[in-house]
Amino acid sequence: MSNQMPPAHPFDDDKLREECGVFGVVGVTDASNFVALGLHALQHRGQEAGGIVTHDTETGFHQARRMGLVRDNFTSADMMAMLPGSIGIGHVRYSTAGSKGQQTAIRDVQPFFGEFSMGGAAIAHNGNITNALALRRELIERGSIFQSSSDTECIIHLMARSMGRTIPDRMEEGLRKVEGAFSIVAMTRTKLIGCRDPLGVRPLVLGRIGEGWALASETCALDIIGAEFVREIEPGEMVVVTEKGVSSHFPFRRAKSRFCIFEHVYFSRPDSILGGRSVYETRENIGRELAKEAPVDADLVCPVPDSGTPAAIGYSLQSGIPYAMGIIRNQYMGRTFIEPSESIRNMGVRLKLNVNRALIKGKRVILVDDSVVRGTTSRKIKEMILDAGAAEVHFRIASPPTAWPCFYGVDTPQREKLLAATMTEDQMREHLGVDSIKFISINGLYRAVGQAKGRDKKNPAYCDACFSGEYPIAPSDMIEQGFKAKTAAE
Amino acid sequence: MSNQMPPAHPFDDDKLREECGVFGVVGVTDASNFVALGLHALQHRGQEAGGIVTHDTETGFHQARRMGLVRDNFTSADMMAMLPGSIGIGHVRYSTAGSKGQQTAIRDVQPFFGEFSMGGAAIAHNGNITNALALRRELIERGSIFQSSSDTECIIHLMARSMGRTIPDRMEEGLRKVEGAFSIVAMTRTKLIGCRDPLGVRPLVLGRIGEGWALASETCALDIIGAEFVREIEPGEMVVVTEKGVSSHFPFRRAKSRFCIFEHVYFSRPDSILGGRSVYETRENIGRELAKEAPVDADLVCPVPDSGTPAAIGYSLQSGIPYAMGIIRNQYMGRTFIEPSESIRNMGVRLKLNVNRALIKGKRVILVDDSVVRGTTSRKIKEMILDAGAAEVHFRIASPPTAWPCFYGVDTPQREKLLAATMTEDQMREHLGVDSIKFISINGLYRAVGQAKGRDKKNPAYCDACFSGEYPIAPSDMIEQGFKAKTAAE
Amino acid sequence: MSNQMPPAHPFDDDKLREECGVFGVVGVTDASNFVALGLHALQHRGQEAGGIVTHDTETGFHQARRMGLVRDNFTSADMMAMLPGSIGIGHVRYSTAGSKGQQTAIRDVQPFFGEFSMGGAAIAHNGNITNALALRRELIERGSIFQSSSDTECIIHLMARSMGRTIPDRMEEGLRKVEGAFSIVAMTRTKLIGCRDPLGVRPLVLGRIGEGWALASETCALDIIGAEFVREIEPGEMVVVTEKGVSSHFPFRRAKSRFCIFEHVYFSRPDSILGGRSVYETRENIGRELAKEAPVDADLVCPVPDSGTPAAIGYSLQSGIPYAMGIIRNQYMGRTFIEPSESIRNMGVRLKLNVNRALIKGKRVILVDDSVVRGTTSRKIKEMILDAGAAEVHFRIASPPTAWPCFYGVDTPQREKLLAATMTEDQMREHLGVDSIKFISINGLYRAVGQAKGRDKKNPAYCDACFSGEYPIAPSDMIEQGFKAKTAAE
Amino acid sequence: MSNQMPPAHPFDDDKLREECGVFGVVGVTDASNFVALGLHALQHRGQEAGGIVTHDTETGFHQARRMGLVRDNFTSADMMAMLPGSIGIGHVRYSTAGSKGQQTAIRDVQPFFGEFSMGGAAIAHNGNITNALALRRELIERGSIFQSSSDTECIIHLMARSMGRTIPDRMEEGLRKVEGAFSIVAMTRTKLIGCRDPLGVRPLVLGRIGEGWALASETCALDIIGAEFVREIEPGEMVVVTEKGVSSHFPFRRAKSRFCIFEHVYFSRPDSILGGRSVYETRENIGRELAKEAPVDADLVCPVPDSGTPAAIGYSLQSGIPYAMGIIRNQYMGRTFIEPSESIRNMGVRLKLNVNRALIKGKRVILVDDSVVRGTTSRKIKEMILDAGAAEVHFRIASPPTAWPCFYGVDTPQREKLLAATMTEDQMREHLGVDSIKFISINGLYRAVGQAKGRDKKNPAYCDACFSGEYPIAPSDMIEQGFKAKTAAE
Repeated sequence: MSNQMPPAHPFDDDKLREECGVFGVVGVTDASNFVALGLHALQHRGQEAGGIVTHDTETGFHQARRMGLVRDNFTSADMMAMLPGSIGIGHVRYSTAGSKGQQTAIRDVQPFFGEFSMGGAAIAHNGNITNALALRRELIERGSIFQSSSDTECIIHLMARSMGRTIPDRMEEGLRKVEGAFSIVAMTRTKLIGCRDPLGVRPLVLGRIGEGWALASETCALDIIGAEFVREIEPGEMVVVTEKGVSSHFPFRRAKSRFCIFEHVYFSRPDSILGGRSVYETRENIGRELAKEAPVDADLVCPVPDSGTPAAIGYSLQSGIPYAMGIIRNQYMGRTFIEPSESIRNMGVRLKLNVNRALIKGKRVILVDDSVVRGTTSRKIKEMILDAGAAEVHFRIASPPTAWPCFYGVDTPQREKLLAATMTEDQMREHLGVDSIKFISINGLYRAVGQAKGRDKKNPAYCDACFSGEYPIAPSDMIEQGFKAKTAAE
Repeated sequence: MSNQMPPAHPFDDDKLREECGVFGVVGVTDASNFVALGLHALQHRGQEAGGIVTHDTETGFHQARRMGLVRDNFTSADMMAMLPGSIGIGHVRYSTAGSKGQQTAIRDVQPFFGEFSMGGAAIAHNGNITNALALRRELIERGSIFQSSSDTECIIHLMARSMGRTIPDRMEEGLRKVEGAFSIVAMTRTKLIGCRDPLGVRPLVLGRIGEGWALASETCALDIIGAEFVREIEPGEMVVVTEKGVSSHFPFRRAKSRFCIFEHVYFSRPDSILGGRSVYETRENIGRELAKEAPVDADLVCPVPDSGTPAAIGYSLQSGIPYAMGIIRNQYMGRTFIEPSESIRNMGVRLKLNVNRALIKGKRVILVDDSVVRGTTSRKIKEMILDAGAAEVHFRIASPPTAWPCFYGVDTPQREKLLAATMTEDQMREHLGVDSIKFISINGLYRAVGQAKGRDKKNPAYCDACFSGEYPIAPSDMIEQGFKAKTAAE
Repeated sequence: MSNQMPPAHPFDDDKLREECGVFGVVGVTDASNFVALGLHALQHRGQEAGGIVTHDTETGFHQARRMGLVRDNFTSADMMAMLPGSIGIGHVRYSTAGSKGQQTAIRDVQPFFGEFSMGGAAIAHNGNITNALALRRELIERGSIFQSSSDTECIIHLMARSMGRTIPDRMEEGLRKVEGAFSIVAMTRTKLIGCRDPLGVRPLVLGRIGEGWALASETCALDIIGAEFVREIEPGEMVVVTEKGVSSHFPFRRAKSRFCIFEHVYFSRPDSILGGRSVYETRENIGRELAKEAPVDADLVCPVPDSGTPAAIGYSLQSGIPYAMGIIRNQYMGRTFIEPSESIRNMGVRLKLNVNRALIKGKRVILVDDSVVRGTTSRKIKEMILDAGAAEVHFRIASPPTAWPCFYGVDTPQREKLLAATMTEDQMREHLGVDSIKFISINGLYRAVGQAKGRDKKNPAYCDACFSGEYPIAPSDMIEQGFKAKTAAE
Repeated sequence: MSNQMPPAHPFDDDKLREECGVFGVVGVTDASNFVALGLHALQHRGQEAGGIVTHDTETGFHQARRMGLVRDNFTSADMMAMLPGSIGIGHVRYSTAGSKGQQTAIRDVQPFFGEFSMGGAAIAHNGNITNALALRRELIERGSIFQSSSDTECIIHLMARSMGRTIPDRMEEGLRKVEGAFSIVAMTRTKLIGCRDPLGVRPLVLGRIGEGWALASETCALDIIGAEFVREIEPGEMVVVTEKGVSSHFPFRRAKSRFCIFEHVYFSRPDSILGGRSVYETRENIGRELAKEAPVDADLVCPVPDSGTPAAIGYSLQSGIPYAMGIIRNQYMGRTFIEPSESIRNMGVRLKLNVNRALIKGKRVILVDDSVVRGTTSRKIKEMILDAGAAEVHFRIASPPTAWPCFYGVDTPQREKLLAATMTEDQMREHLGVDSIKFISINGLYRAVGQAKGRDKKNPAYCDACFSGEYPIAPSDMIEQGFKAKTAAE
């Protein structure tokens, strides 16, 4: 029963989960304050653990890594005093490929720190290295000692073995051996370094704060510290930022950008701006597209809170069907809760959500959710809505069917656990016991993110592997472990 | 600066705050599980502390009282094992009149327990006793030892001094000496007792769960345990509930009901049902009334999250102006956060809220909020919206101006701190620096709660003292301490 | 197995245990610092919980009560800042009669506080009220609400009901209704009050610290704060101490003093002075008497650490047999330890004690212990000594056989669990499997405490009920519950 | 003032401190239970932190490393369940050379773990590597990433770079590059490995427990688990222990043994056996030698508790002057205590020790202590004794003057802080203000450990560098940092 308990964060167990958020700042007084604020704004990208490293010219490097939320670990004056200096980076994480589904151990909490002959450096990574196992094996063979189970640690060891004379040089050399998705924020004693993989799968943005600079996974982390959004780091770009300014490098072979389309659908915060587009408006657009593609006669459009909200508003605005909060979320959810008596069913969801019974009774309800992963939550929500006396229940999903796992820094179940990998829309309707269920089409989704012609099959503008099974970077470790990529027939 | 830090809960510092929620259950296995769940659903009524008392036929009474949230204190199997039995009550609280603005001490955390010659009893109280100081003085004079600073403890001492032969008899006798607002859940070894003051200021409902019964401040707490909502306890009614059934008594002089109208506006959860009305729908109605009373030409209707949401939806539906989430709330707020550098302004609000800049820019925005108390938050939100480039900002408030303190179990600032006590609407508009601000009229509010003719001036159906200054129960302790009630001129 | 786990303190589970220590100070800056130090020095009198109450002229009364050791709870600057003022009292406790063998609840932790019409007072009590149940029953009947299960709370309620016009007057009136043993330290806003029962069963001393005064259970608590020992409070005396001086009262019917002789044997710290006598020297004397009464040819005299040490030194000095540390105590014992594998026997004792094998092997060993209660530890120690290859084991016990429970503030097993209540010395020798076991005679003990003629049968100078079964104060609650006092035949 | 506060353990701040204890076991059910017990028995060798690594054939390696005492971290069933398996090692530490006088960071807590191409290994180390800085510099240059500041981590990296095909082979190869003192317990999935440096500076013993085997720093750790003491690991020996038996290797160039003589004087527990000798008896012997070398007419011989006790007993037995506990130690010392008011002097010592005033008054007292390091404590104790009215105070010290720092795993102050480095015995007498102070001669000490002829100047049997300044292993890192070894003139 305990594995049905709801998690601490508002995003459901039955969701894909972004695995990390990164933040860095240079040229400010008390950098750790800014890093803590930035990480707090990025908390939705990882709730399990967080860490901060700073450097102070007098006392050297300082670090603190903790399990739990930023607000619980990095808010005291005592903690901030332990992290002095005008440069710092930080990381929040959910869990990494490295931890093999187990809980994060403290030794896996980033940023990672390495001492090189020319001085120390710390690194924080959002993404996933797809050849990490092969790299690790090779490095161990040559005498490297790994302290964590994280793929990120490979980068540190590659840097340690590099002959480069500066840390940015070593990082360039190391990252050229790395395959996969990475948005990295790193630091030396004086330099803040940002880097995105050649395809730019994960986001990374640059901001200006007074005389200083900040790097962050999303613009919402710039907003919280009052920084001005300057620009996105480009795919394949490495920036080296000091108090004096920003220098830009392109160490990798150029490639066509393939930004993760799911960042638009779900991962990023609605108040962030991705690729020049408001995430909130994109999601509202998705709702509008969905209303056009999959209309249905009904009395109410209700979001599955909170992530379905913008698409539900869009659906309502497009369809003219009134928007209403048919499901109320409890604001005080915790990670664990009592194991309820057997006589109480569906407790997991009930602890988190309650149906607005008086509103729902007798109504034909459209429920808008962002995605369906295993389908377990959708099923429970449907039951709650029907128990409350709804006349009809129609699911509208703001993403195409999620049929393939992500290997680029998102926690996805194994393929066979994905509902869309084993069922058609019709089978899902029956399985979930609803009156209808419709997903937005892949072309509809591309339209919503501004590709008026939909998806360019030969040259898609985004990484959409979780929907299409087309992996822009070969997941080599996974293939070695038996993962079967899409065949021509699929 | 630290006193401007935002609180842990989503309701702002600049809100009126309900002070308590109560819950009780009898005739179920492992009553403590149900009580914990019920209190969790009532957490919005008090986040500072909580307590549970149970009785087990073999091991007697058990209790646990803790500072903090239900989810953090009452969720472990160990804790539940410490609270055995098939009958139990619980309480969550924000702070009471008794604590004089200080933090709650653990000795003030309810339920309170008393040992009488015929056995023990525990009591949990939502409301406020308006003659508590006078009662306390008299009881101490006669040899009672008070262990808390809570007004509720008077009831226990009055019961101890009663000659009544049963605990319900003693409670009746005690409560007849008490003035004020009270919804009480109490228990003996075998009886669950519920009672509302003659005016029924605070809510209390009865539910059926299998062979057992539950009492709760709101119906949402019945929903979470899967109980069926039976009926509200009537004003002035005392129910004595055992496994065998419910007996009803009316020990007090009959009076006309004066339920707190602010429960509809803000305190109660939107998925609860009050007086036969869905709270959510009432709030949507308020928004509709507001759109009729105070229309304005604009591009977007945005709620101040989260409490302004239903009224904003109503305003949008009535006016046809699109509804949008112009302000995003951070889901991970904590009670404390770092003291930011001086160069960062308005941090308190930014930690909690961020403006959806891309959406707001260049738009004329209607912001719908539930109430204005001190006005400090309204001012900061306005600044954030303007910083983000809004063309116009119009506040629409889903309650009349809050000009008088509440003495019936709600934490309100002193009168002089209430913006509406010192300013007209026009002055507020200037003070807040917005393009317009409009409150719903008192008649509009009464219409939204179903009184088609608006407020009956001679015989109002609700307690609306915070708006009207007409106190249905004389606040005698406060008058003794110098509070000046409304004069004929006001 | 878990109930064989060793306790946190160095005194064994198989010992009688003093239940409380009290301390108070007036006329000093930062009284709480002094109270914390005093309680730390009295920690051997109670390790389960502690509390401090202070009064500050500006901010009123302050209190903190905590489970655990003084060093863990009352040592931080934060805690001390919460307890301001120039007058304060404190209490450490093991457990009281009230808690009926269960763990102390926080509500039972003293000092207790009561608010009277003329102001507040706090009280801390060492001893036991032998008519507490009868008093409690009567007080509840009259409307008092008890908040704890402690006998001490009766005193507060008796004071609340007194018509006395000052708090000392009320305390006098209350204590006159109380039977039993009590050494009390109490305080009002300005007065420190000390009182001993008419027989003076428990100790209480007065000290001078600069311009201020201190009261303490033992002189070692005066030493730690650098106070000068002035005198003992006399049996039946009440002192009221202010910054201006000490006034003395004798409110009770005069009686002959009967100080607890076991304070000399075991309870008090060896560096304290009781009745003008060094506790350490008395214990050394006991060892000398024992060597005279029960000589034996052997190679080594070893104490059972740590309480048997002074008597073992005395035995060695008298007998000329070399003193040696045959048993070594682990300094790092904790309250709990892992449940060891079944293959490891006698773990409980081994975690705490280890035999000095190389020293013991082949030797005839005299083991000196302070007392034998259940005999369980004696048996395990004997086994360890024999396992290590000792040729002979002779127990010498520095107190007469403990055959009767104490009702005056000491935690004793029920009579049937006391080894000496069911066995003769010969039977014990066989039961324990040792070569000999001898207890000091009651006359020998009296000689060691300076009564050259031994015990005056008609008029004994001490309370020795645990040895003699002669109770100087009738244990009326216990008799009501079925305790059978000594018959003429015994 | 706070840095004068006494530490948690009974050994004074003003003592040399052993830095580590190691323990390992193989071939038992629930190895972690045994490791926890063994570490508990070795707690006197390190109180700051501890760690355990185990290996389970099904679930692999497990580890837990914690700040604080074994009893507080490794006693719960939950913790033990996290450490399954039949093989395990553990470590307790005070602080290491690596941490440069700062508090231990959790990353410095051993055992250290490394993953090699043939599998994982963990290592725990007592001692100090004297060329660690040089090794570290070289390893970093070649691409090793250090995760701790500990000298021990060098061994792991040397092993990682070795071409050896088994872990024991790699350890041999690695240790051949290491200079200094080391007693190591290590483990692979199936093998328990023990190793001592060629001079055997630190102790390491082998025990038999049922069908399994144990390695421990001292025999007292074998006693606690009920293991039989088999033999000491020889200087320069490496043993590889599996369930099937023990194989012995001598990988290093043979050298003459130089065991640390201070282990006999102070570090080891009195119930341990070192080099076939009872530590307790050696210390008693030291006391006897001291009485012969430095007799004085006095009334009492008192130990400075607790470490001076055996030597005080020896002095008393030899001199015939009665032994007495003139100073009483508080059993409940904690790591921190309140910062006392300025009016209270010498609080640091008073919190820990109290003089038995009644005993001491007017007496000529011989105080026996194990060593004098800075002399700060000796001075305070002298003051306490004189304050209590002693007629004369004579210090007798159970070790020669400590005039040189230790570089082999003992925490010593810099040379200029050592009292004996700057003063003669006469100067110390004046400085301390005592009637006399005498140290045992170096020859007396050698006689007490069984070298009838005293110290062989050309070929001393022990490492006595802290007394003689003759370092058997060149402290190369320290010399590089400017340490000046003894010149011919000294």
